[in-house]
Amino acid sequence: MDPRDELLIQLKNAAGWKSGEELSRQMAMTRSAVWKHIVKLREEGYNIESSPRKGYRLADPDLIVASDVLKDLAGGLFDRPQSRFLRQTASTNLDARHLAETGAPEGTLVVADSQDSGKGRRARKWFSPPGLGIYLSFVLRPAISPAEAAKITLLTSVSTAEALSELTGLQARIKWPNDILAGGKKIAGILAEISTELDSINYMVVGLGLNINVPLGAFPEELRGTATSVLIETGREFSRAQLLKAILRDFERRYGAARRDGFQSALKRWRELSDVIGKNIRVETAGETVKGTVVELDRDGALVLRDSRGAVRRFLSGDIIRESR
Amino acid sequence: MDPRDELLIQLKNAAGWKSGEELSRQMAMTRSAVWKHIVKLREEGYNIESSPRKGYRLADPDLIVASDVLKDLAGGLFDRPQSRFLRQTASTNLDARHLAETGAPEGTLVVADSQDSGKGRRARKWFSPPGLGIYLSFVLRPAISPAEAAKITLLTSVSTAEALSELTGLQARIKWPNDILAGGKKIAGILAEISTELDSINYMVVGLGLNINVPLGAFPEELRGTATSVLIETGREFSRAQLLKAILRDFERRYGAARRDGFQSALKRWRELSDVIGKNIRVETAGETVKGTVVELDRDGALVLRDSRGAVRRFLSGDIIRESR
Repeated sequence: MDPRDELLIQLKNAAGWKSGEELSRQMAMTRSAVWKHIVKLREEGYNIESSPRKGYRLADPDLIVASDVLKDLAGGLFDRPQSRFLRQTASTNLDARHLAETGAPEGTLVVADSQDSGKGRRARKWFSPPGLGIYLSFVLRPAISPAEAAKITLLTSVSTAEALSELTGLQARIKWPNDILAGGKKIAGILAEISTELDSINYMVVGLGLNINVPLGAFPEELRGTATSVLIETGREFSRAQLLKAILRDFERRYGAARRDGFQSALKRWRELSDVIGKNIRVETAGETVKGTVVELDRDGALVLRDSRGAVRRFLSGDIIRESR
Repeated sequence: MDPRDELLIQLKNAAGWKSGEELSRQMAMTRSAVWKHIVKLREEGYNIESSPRKGYRLADPDLIVASDVLKDLAGGLFDRPQSRFLRQTASTNLDARHLAETGAPEGTLVVADSQDSGKGRRARKWFSPPGLGIYLSFVLRPAISPAEAAKITLLTSVSTAEALSELTGLQARIKWPNDILAGGKKIAGILAEISTELDSINYMVVGLGLNINVPLGAFPEELRGTATSVLIETGREFSRAQLLKAILRDFERRYGAARRDGFQSALKRWRELSDVIGKNIRVETAGETVKGTVVELDRDGALVLRDSRGAVRRFLSGDIIRESR
């Protein structure tokens, strides 16, 4: 293991002060070597306090440590040495696309503690405060046609909702196509970006933003009515690394199953979690707004709507708004 | 105008030796300033010979000069200061994608005199020898769904075939989906790469490789049976810049027309130039090979095939091989 990763895990597990002497003994290096690694870690952005009498302390114990995450994912889809765990970045989707462009294999991860310009669908921003959420993107290279790419995205939303419900007890729901709601507000969003030729996928980048330990007051005012976090909904803080690993393991399992047996079972769960069939809604797309009743979520992940004149329309993406009655 | 561009045009128009004194007078700069620009141009890869008595001479007079091309395209789709004219690059498609990722507008061009790793469809290479062809990519941001992207590609193949026929007298044909043939051999290829979210296009990069003044002996042996050039087919050399401008002007006109009135007229011409309806062919895609008779080229640019059992199949891309009978 990288000595700096080991140092981080030692400090994280200590959950308080740890003396330089102890660290030096456990890591089998001199105290000045420990100090040099601490300096490097601080340069990388880790907030490590030091005191001549008490030693060192990690100011942010809910840390996502690369080797800890990768150990748990060893041997599977996400066991990739190309993966990046960053303190800070502009956008994990952008980083993952760059990695994909330079040949990074399926399963390559980019995880960041904060994003300057986190991306949502249609060039919207995703609020990504340091250390309080999961900001994650991964590269896939599925052997499916571009028209089927929506299925991968819905698979990601199922995994996120399931892992969230299981670990936190929340009733996470899916708002078509790919928002995750808790208590009726947005707790996670997914952005898929796809690079294709005409009928084949070069690569897909799936990005996930999940609000975990964000207190209400930390959200910008304009988001407080529509956004929420695990902390707000449950009143408790949760380990970001635990949630991250649970989501990735669930996705890995469903993605493998989909490759073997197709997307039917994921699609079934996605429909159950979406709870939109028969509802009266409006769909807003880039070009228009259409009112109607949801007929079904079809086998491609499209929303099928019957409008007021009885015409049936099909949408692969857009924003839905529930009508009041 | 950039003084180095002006110098290049002076040398190009001279079509032989031009004295330093004359250049200095025409460009209203000292002879030592002329010399400094010549040194810079050589560093950029231009092959400029010098002689103490005769002056300067451009060893490659069939040069594509940025300002000359852009002047002819002023005020239109391709009038973009972000455009790049390069002596050499790995791949113009890759360059154009990088420009698009950083916000380059629709119409941004990348033109190179040679490519190290020119790309064809399905990760194939495109043979791109220095100064003998057109290696071009451009950025588009059409407000259409990803499913319609094939229409833009077919529009490019129509423009290439039409400009080629008009300027050189060749009978250029289209081999579905996007190869241009002359004398039954491949003279140009088009590679579209598309970056999308689920139902919107972020950007599209259309790449064109066109063999112009390539002598048969310059092709790698394995290509000689299937590839050709304008020089091989007509026995004459043609100006690369003239062809480049003609193709771009034709595309600009058709793209504008398609935005106003739809793709019908381009599609009609594409069908005529394709000449595949009713023919017995095989289609090879990434996953399979299907034999059948071509029923139509549909309004999305897809090839519709009836196989031996009477089943109708639809393909947006692939390689077609004519059956011998």
